[in-house]
Amino acid sequence: MKEISIGLIGAGTVGGGVIKVLNNRLKAIREDMGLPLKLARVADKVTSRFKDLPVGDALCTSEAQDIIDDPSIDIVIELIGGTTFAKKVVLAALKAKKHVITANKALIAEYGPEIFECAGQNGVSFYFEASVGGGMPIIKTIREGLVGNNVLSIKTIINGTCNYILTKMSHDGLPFETVLKQAQEKGYAEADPTLDIGGGDTGHKVAILASLISNGYVPYEKISKEGITSISKDDIVFAKELGYTIKLLGIINRNVNEKDVDVRVHPAMLHTDHIIASVNDVFNAVLLEGDAVGRILLYGRGAGEMPTASAVVSDIIDVARNIASGNTIRIPMDYYSTDKEVPVKPFESISSRYYLRFTVTDKPKVLASIASYLGEHGISIASVMQKEGYSKDNVPVVIITHTASEQGIRDAIAGIENADYTRDKTQIIRIVD
Amino acid sequence: MKEISIGLIGAGTVGGGVIKVLNNRLKAIREDMGLPLKLARVADKVTSRFKDLPVGDALCTSEAQDIIDDPSIDIVIELIGGTTFAKKVVLAALKAKKHVITANKALIAEYGPEIFECAGQNGVSFYFEASVGGGMPIIKTIREGLVGNNVLSIKTIINGTCNYILTKMSHDGLPFETVLKQAQEKGYAEADPTLDIGGGDTGHKVAILASLISNGYVPYEKISKEGITSISKDDIVFAKELGYTIKLLGIINRNVNEKDVDVRVHPAMLHTDHIIASVNDVFNAVLLEGDAVGRILLYGRGAGEMPTASAVVSDIIDVARNIASGNTIRIPMDYYSTDKEVPVKPFESISSRYYLRFTVTDKPKVLASIASYLGEHGISIASVMQKEGYSKDNVPVVIITHTASEQGIRDAIAGIENADYTRDKTQIIRIVD
Repeated sequence: MKEISIGLIGAGTVGGGVIKVLNNRLKAIREDMGLPLKLARVADKVTSRFKDLPVGDALCTSEAQDIIDDPSIDIVIELIGGTTFAKKVVLAALKAKKHVITANKALIAEYGPEIFECAGQNGVSFYFEASVGGGMPIIKTIREGLVGNNVLSIKTIINGTCNYILTKMSHDGLPFETVLKQAQEKGYAEADPTLDIGGGDTGHKVAILASLISNGYVPYEKISKEGITSISKDDIVFAKELGYTIKLLGIINRNVNEKDVDVRVHPAMLHTDHIIASVNDVFNAVLLEGDAVGRILLYGRGAGEMPTASAVVSDIIDVARNIASGNTIRIPMDYYSTDKEVPVKPFESISSRYYLRFTVTDKPKVLASIASYLGEHGISIASVMQKEGYSKDNVPVVIITHTASEQGIRDAIAGIENADYTRDKTQIIRIVD
Repeated sequence: MKEISIGLIGAGTVGGGVIKVLNNRLKAIREDMGLPLKLARVADKVTSRFKDLPVGDALCTSEAQDIIDDPSIDIVIELIGGTTFAKKVVLAALKAKKHVITANKALIAEYGPEIFECAGQNGVSFYFEASVGGGMPIIKTIREGLVGNNVLSIKTIINGTCNYILTKMSHDGLPFETVLKQAQEKGYAEADPTLDIGGGDTGHKVAILASLISNGYVPYEKISKEGITSISKDDIVFAKELGYTIKLLGIINRNVNEKDVDVRVHPAMLHTDHIIASVNDVFNAVLLEGDAVGRILLYGRGAGEMPTASAVVSDIIDVARNIASGNTIRIPMDYYSTDKEVPVKPFESISSRYYLRFTVTDKPKVLASIASYLGEHGISIASVMQKEGYSKDNVPVVIITHTASEQGIRDAIAGIENADYTRDKTQIIRIVD
C-alpha cells in the first residue's frame, strides 16, 4: 500500500503535541494497524519551533502553501487557529483534494456549511474531533457510537477556563476578578479571555454539537450566550447554602416531533448531587440523553497539548482508514448546510426554575412588592433567603422560584428594577435538573 | 447502491430492542446516512416472539441456519447468548462471508482468537460493541477514539447486578442474600446469578478490554476473579465509617515497557470522593488513563434492552459503512490471537493498601499478635478499628494497611488464621486509588 502522507500546518502547542503523539504511536500505527502513515511536511511561520519537535525527516517550511501545493500530501492538519487564514488554508487544501483535520471550533461553528460543502464536492473527508471536548471522543460518540439514537438532550461543561474559575471561586471564596487573574498567570485563561468567559467558546462547541444531533445546521449567531462575568462571590455562597453548584453550561434540548431546537449557553445551578456538579477545575463533561441508550456521560480533559493531540491523531487514523478502504466519504455531512438550518427556539420561550438575587435597599414592604411583581407574572416562589450583615442600601434578597417562563421572569424583573428600592441589576441564574 | 441485508438471530430482549431501534432510525439511516439497510430475516426458536415486534416485511424463521444459508444476507447479528450454539452460528456465518455482530462477551472472551482468525480469513468484519458496557461506546473509544494513546490503566464498574446489590446494601443496610433476592425479583439478577456475583461476567469484559489495550490476547481463564458474595453488612458499614465505598472493580494496569499486564476482578474500596465511587445502581463506568489524553470516563447503562440495542445498531452502521466503502476489514484484529498471548501478572505480585477484617475471640494480646504477624511480613498498619457490641467469640478487628505486597498479606493472614483466637476467614478488600 502507498504511503499516506501528512502535512501539518501550525506547530504551536497542539501541533507540537500531534507530532509527539504520532511519533510515540508510529510503530503501532504502521505495524499493528497496518496504516503506512508518515509525517511528511510541517509548516509554521515561527520556524524556530521545528528544532524542539521530533519532526523526524519531515520537510519543514514557513509557508502553509508549500503543503497545499505538494501533490504527495494526502492529509492536511490545520492547527493555525483563528478563522481568517485558517479558513483560506482549509478551503484551499480541500480544493486540492486533500483530506483535512482541524481542532478549530470557531471555524466550524462559523463557516461549517461552506467547509462541509467544499469537502463533499471534492470527495474528501473533513474531520474535527478535537474541536469539541479535547481528548473526549464526543464527535465520534455522536456520529458513530450513538447513531442508533435520537439524541434528545445535551448538558455540557465544555470550557475549561470557566470551570476552573468557578471551581476556584467556590473552593477559595475569591471574587471573579482575582481568580481570573490567577487563571491567566497559570495559563488557564488567555490574555484576552472574552471568548471563554463570555460564553462564546462554549457557544461554538454547542453550535457544533447541536448541528450534529439535529441533523441540520444550527448557526452560532442564533444561540443565546451568557458568560460567567456577572457571577459574584455571594451567588457562589448562596448556591452552596441552597445545595447547588454554579457551572457554565451548554444546553441543548430537542423534541423529535418539533422542528426547532433549544440551544443556549448560560451559568446554571446544578444540585450538588447532579452527576456533572462535581466536574471541577479544567475538566469537561458531556451528558447526553439518547432515546435508546438513556443517559451517557463523557468526562475528561477538554483542552491542552496532549489531550487535544490525542483527538487529532484519532482523526488521522480514521481518515487513513478511509483512504485505505478507497477514499470514500464515510460520514456524509450534507446536512451541515445553510439549506438545512435548524431554527433555534427563542430563549424567552423556555421555562425553568430560577435563582433570582435582587439588590435592594432595606425598607419595609420591599419583599412584598417583589413577591407581588412575581405573582402578577404567574411566578410561584419556592423559597426566599435574606441575610443580615449587608449595608442598608445593598441588601441581597434571594428567591428560588418554581418552574416559570423566561418571558414572565424578564417582565417581572423589569418591573422590580424600575421600583425605587432596587439598587442594582438583578442576578438571574437558571436551575437545571 | 445495493441493499445491505441484515439477518438477526435471537429475538429475545436485546434482539427485540435491536428491531425497535432499527425501525425507529431507519429513515435517518437510509436517507441522512445514505445506507440502504434492510432487516431481511429474523430467526428465533420461539416463533411467538415475532408477532410482538415491528419486524416489517422481514422473513421470520425458527431456524438460524436459514439466515446463514441465505446468500442475500450481508450482516448477521448473533443475539442467542451462551457459547455453544452461538459459537457455531458465528463461525458458520463468518465462513459464509457474512459480517457478524454480537453482544456476546463470553463468546469473545473465551473463543475470541478462533473467531477473529475466522473473520480475518474470510475478509469480513466482526463487531462487538455491545459485549462490554452496553450502550457506552467503550470498544469504539478504545479502538478508535483513543488510538493515539497507549492506554495505561482501566478501572471499571461493569456489572450492573453487582453494582445494584452493593448500592442497595449500602443504602438500605441489608445483607447480601436479602438484596440478591430483591434483585432477582426485579429482574436485575438472573435465577442463577453465579456469573455476575462471582465476578465471571466482569472477568469476560475485562478480558476483552485488556486484550484491546495491550494489542494481544489476554485469556479469560488467566484472570483472577473474586466476586462480591463475601461482602458483609459489617464491611459496608466499616467502609463508610472509614470514608470508602465498596465496588466490584475490573482493574487493568499496563506498563508499556513490560510484557505482562495486571488484570484482575475483585471488590475494592474506593474513597467516597473517587470519581467512580458515586456510580450507583445498575449504572456502569469505565475510567481509562491514556498516555496522551490523561483520564477519561465513560458512564451509562451497561445493560438492558435498549442500551444494548443502541450499541448493536452502532455496529450495524459501522459495518454498513465498511460495506459501502468496499468491504474492507477496517480494524484488523490479528493481535487477538493465541500467538500473541499477553502474560497476566500473578495476583500475588501486586501491591496495594488493604482493608483486613479479622474475626477473633475477645481475649488479651490478640491485637498484639495480629500486628506482630503483619509486621513480620513487612506490613505497616495505617489504622485499626475495633468496636464494642459483638459477642465475645465474634469480634471484628479491622485494619487498614499502608501499601503492602499481596503475597505478604496472604502469608501474614495464613499465620493469623492458624492462631487459636481466629474464629472465621479473614476478609481482604483492596483499597484502590
